[in-house]
Amino acid sequence: MANAMLLPVLISFLVLPFSALALTQDFCVADLSCSDTPAGYPCKTGVGAGDFYYHGLAAAGNTSNLIKAAVTPAFVGQFPGVNGLGISAARLDIAVGGVVPLHTHPAASELLFVTEGTILAGFISSSSNTVYTKTLYKGDIMVFPQGLLHYQYNGGGSAAVALVAFSGPNPGLQITDYALFANNLPSAVVEKVTFLDDAQVKKLKSVLGGSG
Amino acid sequence: MANAMLLPVLISFLVLPFSALALTQDFCVADLSCSDTPAGYPCKTGVGAGDFYYHGLAAAGNTSNLIKAAVTPAFVGQFPGVNGLGISAARLDIAVGGVVPLHTHPAASELLFVTEGTILAGFISSSSNTVYTKTLYKGDIMVFPQGLLHYQYNGGGSAAVALVAFSGPNPGLQITDYALFANNLPSAVVEKVTFLDDAQVKKLKSVLGGSG
Amino acid sequence: MANAMLLPVLISFLVLPFSALALTQDFCVADLSCSDTPAGYPCKTGVGAGDFYYHGLAAAGNTSNLIKAAVTPAFVGQFPGVNGLGISAARLDIAVGGVVPLHTHPAASELLFVTEGTILAGFISSSSNTVYTKTLYKGDIMVFPQGLLHYQYNGGGSAAVALVAFSGPNPGLQITDYALFANNLPSAVVEKVTFLDDAQVKKLKSVLGGSG
Amino acid sequence: MANAMLLPVLISFLVLPFSALALTQDFCVADLSCSDTPAGYPCKTGVGAGDFYYHGLAAAGNTSNLIKAAVTPAFVGQFPGVNGLGISAARLDIAVGGVVPLHTHPAASELLFVTEGTILAGFISSSSNTVYTKTLYKGDIMVFPQGLLHYQYNGGGSAAVALVAFSGPNPGLQITDYALFANNLPSAVVEKVTFLDDAQVKKLKSVLGGSG
Amino acid sequence: MANAMLLPVLISFLVLPFSALALTQDFCVADLSCSDTPAGYPCKTGVGAGDFYYHGLAAAGNTSNLIKAAVTPAFVGQFPGVNGLGISAARLDIAVGGVVPLHTHPAASELLFVTEGTILAGFISSSSNTVYTKTLYKGDIMVFPQGLLHYQYNGGGSAAVALVAFSGPNPGLQITDYALFANNLPSAVVEKVTFLDDAQVKKLKSVLGGSG
Amino acid sequence: MANAMLLPVLISFLVLPFSALALTQDFCVADLSCSDTPAGYPCKTGVGAGDFYYHGLAAAGNTSNLIKAAVTPAFVGQFPGVNGLGISAARLDIAVGGVVPLHTHPAASELLFVTEGTILAGFISSSSNTVYTKTLYKGDIMVFPQGLLHYQYNGGGSAAVALVAFSGPNPGLQITDYALFANNLPSAVVEKVTFLDDAQVKKLKSVLGGSG
Repeated sequence: MANAMLLPVLISFLVLPFSALALTQDFCVADLSCSDTPAGYPCKTGVGAGDFYYHGLAAAGNTSNLIKAAVTPAFVGQFPGVNGLGISAARLDIAVGGVVPLHTHPAASELLFVTEGTILAGFISSSSNTVYTKTLYKGDIMVFPQGLLHYQYNGGGSAAVALVAFSGPNPGLQITDYALFANNLPSAVVEKVTFLDDAQVKKLKSVLGGSG
Repeated sequence: MANAMLLPVLISFLVLPFSALALTQDFCVADLSCSDTPAGYPCKTGVGAGDFYYHGLAAAGNTSNLIKAAVTPAFVGQFPGVNGLGISAARLDIAVGGVVPLHTHPAASELLFVTEGTILAGFISSSSNTVYTKTLYKGDIMVFPQGLLHYQYNGGGSAAVALVAFSGPNPGLQITDYALFANNLPSAVVEKVTFLDDAQVKKLKSVLGGSG
Repeated sequence: MANAMLLPVLISFLVLPFSALALTQDFCVADLSCSDTPAGYPCKTGVGAGDFYYHGLAAAGNTSNLIKAAVTPAFVGQFPGVNGLGISAARLDIAVGGVVPLHTHPAASELLFVTEGTILAGFISSSSNTVYTKTLYKGDIMVFPQGLLHYQYNGGGSAAVALVAFSGPNPGLQITDYALFANNLPSAVVEKVTFLDDAQVKKLKSVLGGSG
Repeated sequence: MANAMLLPVLISFLVLPFSALALTQDFCVADLSCSDTPAGYPCKTGVGAGDFYYHGLAAAGNTSNLIKAAVTPAFVGQFPGVNGLGISAARLDIAVGGVVPLHTHPAASELLFVTEGTILAGFISSSSNTVYTKTLYKGDIMVFPQGLLHYQYNGGGSAAVALVAFSGPNPGLQITDYALFANNLPSAVVEKVTFLDDAQVKKLKSVLGGSG
Repeated sequence: MANAMLLPVLISFLVLPFSALALTQDFCVADLSCSDTPAGYPCKTGVGAGDFYYHGLAAAGNTSNLIKAAVTPAFVGQFPGVNGLGISAARLDIAVGGVVPLHTHPAASELLFVTEGTILAGFISSSSNTVYTKTLYKGDIMVFPQGLLHYQYNGGGSAAVALVAFSGPNPGLQITDYALFANNLPSAVVEKVTFLDDAQVKKLKSVLGGSG
Repeated sequence: MANAMLLPVLISFLVLPFSALALTQDFCVADLSCSDTPAGYPCKTGVGAGDFYYHGLAAAGNTSNLIKAAVTPAFVGQFPGVNGLGISAARLDIAVGGVVPLHTHPAASELLFVTEGTILAGFISSSSNTVYTKTLYKGDIMVFPQGLLHYQYNGGGSAAVALVAFSGPNPGLQITDYALFANNLPSAVVEKVTFLDDAQVKKLKSVLGGSG
């Protein structure tokens, strides 16, 4: 290599020995215009650096709502670069008094970093209904195992922000209240499968826009 | 092979060509005396036909309880032969008027076969809170995708029985009511993360044995 | 939440905080009109409750054939709702004297529930050719590890029925006799790779419709 | 449920129907005193909320070193709660002029959130040696596909901080310079497999403490 | 870096920024003295280069047997370095007229390279019993999908040798003749599940050392 | 079966019991005209034996280049039959004095068989920068764990040949020199992230055709 006379030969090395290689799977940026598959979206062509970058978590979500909280996702639908890579993200903004209500992610574990404020978080095991809860300050992290019910709420006197990572590109988000009260599941069925009182069910259905 | 003179040689074939093989992973019956791992239990030694057989689903579960239903599991803890095989089972007995309350399986999809009676079953998607519900008669099957809230109840005038298969050896079972009301999660927290009224929470906590 | 004045705000909660979510992978019902992929079929759009339900196992299969048995599948090809969920099913009907001949499932383990009659079942390990066999009565279950040779036959005096679950949506079914005798694999090759006698091979080829 | 007379019965429901359940795999906190396995560490017993929480990323790493940067890991070795959950984390502190040198993670993809300052980051594809590079500001995220060479350096006038998530509990970290110059790999071999000049190799070996 | 005055600082870089890392999963050489798990053996400590090297395929296997063939495995039991890596190997020696009888690998696909001689190979699909067969010469490769019946035999006038790779560390090997005739599976059962004649079954059982 | 009168009935067995089966996933030969997905290419139709066979490794690669070596791949792009099967292959030709430069495979472990000559091979662990190196002779095998830097060079006086298998259909190949010097990554960035001297970087960029 020290000899410049080798350069022409090395350039042929550049071309020759691996010329048959057509590796397509360093990554697989989602082509969201195609149908999804069980392993993720088909790969788009014409990928650039912008496909691996997302700006959408930089701004705070709007917490002017009853829960005083906002979840801003960077899942495969918003950030196609994570397709097939087993990871995705979200931003949590929780105003004073705000809450991310009881929910699960059917398809991923969650790792939460607190970047501002104080968050009270907990999850509940399925085997013994044990509650695992922690008060988290700036810089703390907590992990919520896949599929288990959990919640986060602001436990301090100022706005709280967290960055959340998931162990899959499309973790899902099932908020228990929405699943029960924001659709057309009849009140009688909700009551039968939850033991909640009729008045309670109807009140929340009314609030959350459910029918039946 | 037609020539009996070849027999002595073939017997050496029996012994020789594969003598170095020590295949241990046709199966991996759980050694429940060891610690579990993320992929399942270590394999026990001294396996027999009985390890792949389970009788515990043959008898009806006891439905003399408020929900008038019983779930009898054949998970890896009861049926160690399924360890590492990506499958397990359970039996559902639902008396007239009985219900398997709203629940999820954090770690498996469920496939339900009705063997007796009529079962009303439903699950709720996470993305749009859409309810998918069916009345199931003897011989019908329904599949409940992993991690989504679902329920089953007896929709007929006689006892219902179902056999259930799971896409994993240890599917988990998280009953929403238990997760909320059968432990020491404080009522104030339950209310904050569910929007349920205080009286409703305290009533169910009292019923289900929860404290706080 | 107790205050009705909050309702308008909560309705905005319904709309606002998660509005960017477009989760597509709670499930992935197969679009059988597309090409399969190694992880399953692309997801169809326009899913309804009927996609997660299958009635085809309710009726007995026709056992008026030599083996006096019928296998009725509910694999992804018949039951597209199982696509991507790691599970599928089948129904076994075995008349008196009937048999499901020696076979493997290349891509799944099998869990069998007996719902009527008596079934003698067995599988053979690859490492030591050990036979694991059981007589199964109504309510018994047995598991057959992925890829291993196994069989089931009616061991009683009345028709037997079993419901079978698989640890994958497309388990495959390779019946040894069919693989050897129901195609154009030349008799000389069959004999060479099985040590069966020529007359035996030709007899079964003739019976099963094979040529060569 | 409205009838208090049902309470005693419901309490029996609490005890009876699921009493045989012994679910052990909601999670699997690593028992680091055991040998690892290909799927992670065996599960420890006696788990508490503290096992799912980690404080070690709250403080800045010490950047008083040549690279003016520090990587503080929260992998399974530091944060046993992530065992088996397909996720882990780290904190990056990069002083002005600092750099995280060219490296790969052999066993995970990486998702980086900038929480302070400006970071220039890039990765190189294997198929075409294409460079994908971005300037990242506070709130931006970027994903680095598994196994590909990448780097990050401070591109601004103040300290930069990033929180990093990985798609596995033990991602690994292979810094190219360390792999080449901080061990006993003979200089002649380094030169042969990298085409670097002898003087360059010996200089870096000396700096990084390598021998040979 | 061009300035030698930086060297002392860089040495501190060597020590400081990553000192907390204890990555254990670059690899996981099997500790065969422990129980296996569904994902492979626990990792041994004290690993050296020899653990990733195997000499046992260098010598020809002994083909002085009826099948005139030998399979020499380099599975995890012989070559512990492949544990957890999703790959293993074997050597096939097939004398003139020799055969590797009909068999499956329950837990891996197979890729075969011919290094000497001529091999006739085939596999049979499960869906349609289609036979896929090829005559392979030195330098040719063929792939046999997981779990499907296949065979190889010498199709030339000189000894044939092949190197075989598997898509798993412990592929298993189930030779149909052994599974049927080299154990205590009663002849009546073999006949029932294969439709073979009694005389044929008893002849092969006698040859292969089976009883019953 | 002994009774020829049964033959007509058995033929109906051929047709009847499994007639509903349409198994499509014994294998999934890549349709390279479609977009890839994270789990591999969609399956092509009209598969024949030729799809599972590849002749392209039979001839030596052209080693008339600076590295005096050639890598001839049989990845999914060249050999579509391996799609979805977790395995692929390549041929290495290394002339006297030749080298396969330092590289990684981001998506697979590698198993190398020496078929001619002598190869010096090594890999470097990420956790401790330990070098694992071996001199390999004809018949020897060595395994290189996924994602770790490794190299091979001819250590003898004659041409060396190796057959290589990978634990995935599309392993990728990232040659460190190419990633650094054969593209438009600016020299200043290369120097910053590698600590190489400016002259060294520019020399190799010039040789390998890089710009910047």
